[in-house]
Amino acid sequence: MDTIDAAGETFTVRRAEAEDVPALVALLADDMIGSGREQEDLAPYLAAFAEIDADPRQFLAVVEDASGGVCGTLQLTLVPCLSRRGSTRLLIESVRLAGATRGRGLGTALFAWAHEYGRHHGAALAQLTTDKSRVDAHRFYDRLGYRASHEGYKLAL
Amino acid sequence: MDTIDAAGETFTVRRAEAEDVPALVALLADDMIGSGREQEDLAPYLAAFAEIDADPRQFLAVVEDASGGVCGTLQLTLVPCLSRRGSTRLLIESVRLAGATRGRGLGTALFAWAHEYGRHHGAALAQLTTDKSRVDAHRFYDRLGYRASHEGYKLAL
Repeated sequence: MDTIDAAGETFTVRRAEAEDVPALVALLADDMIGSGREQEDLAPYLAAFAEIDADPRQFLAVVEDASGGVCGTLQLTLVPCLSRRGSTRLLIESVRLAGATRGRGLGTALFAWAHEYGRHHGAALAQLTTDKSRVDAHRFYDRLGYRASHEGYKLAL
Repeated sequence: MDTIDAAGETFTVRRAEAEDVPALVALLADDMIGSGREQEDLAPYLAAFAEIDADPRQFLAVVEDASGGVCGTLQLTLVPCLSRRGSTRLLIESVRLAGATRGRGLGTALFAWAHEYGRHHGAALAQLTTDKSRVDAHRFYDRLGYRASHEGYKLAL
C-alpha cells in the first residue's frame, strides 16, 4: 500500500482484491463511454479479476480516500519487449476517477505514482490510448508530458 | 508452428527462440523509425527475450519463408482486463515485415493468424498503436477493419 497526497488530502493506492470488484465496475460504468459497455452481472468481472490477480505483471490499482471510499482505479501491465533496445513497457488501461475527485490534482498524483511503479519495475516507456472524444483527458496527458505520437487502433475479435 | 499462405507461397509462424534474436533485432532496426532506436549489442535484447519467453501471456512470433529465412515478426500480449465486461485484450506490438515481402498479402495473412490466436485465447478486442507518420500502415489497418478511435500517448520514464 502506498499513499499519495492531493488537494490537502491523503489517498491510498493498493492492489485490488476480489471484494473491490463491485466498486471498480461501478467506476468503469460511471463514464460517458463506459456506461454502454458494462453490465450488472459480476461473474465475468470476477473471472477477469482472478486472472489479473494471479499475474505478477498486472497491477489493478484501487485508490481510496481518507474514509476508505473507493474513488479511483487504473490497471498497469508490464510488457517485456524486444524493440527499443529490449525495453519493458508500462501499459496503462482503464483509468477512472470518481467525478467528485476530479480537478483537484489526484489524477496527476496517481500518474506520478504509476510512473514510479513502472520505473521501479524496469519500464522505460509508459503508453496508453484514450478515445479521441475524451478532450479533457487529452489535455491532462499533454500536461503530464505525454506525446500523442501514435494512432490507437482497435478491432473487435 | 502454424502455416500461412500468401502470394502463392507458404510461410510458417512460430514462437521465437533465443537463436532468432539477432535476426529479429535486424528486422526491428531495418525501419525508418526503428533504425534510430536499436543498437548492435545484443545483451539487452537477449535479456528481454528471456522475460518474454517465460511469460505464457506473451507470444513473440517469427515468420519464416519456405527456405527458412526470417521475414517477419510481431509480439502478441494477452491482457486480462476488468473493463468491457471483463474482456481480455490482444495487444499487438513491434510488427515488422522484411521489405521484400511487402505488398504481397503476407501482412494480411499474418494479422488473420494473430486475430485467430487472440480469439483462441479468449481475447475480445485487438489493439495496437502505430506512429502517426506511418501512413502506409494506417491504410493497412483501415483495410483490416481496425478503427483509429483512440489517441496513442507515450511517455519516456
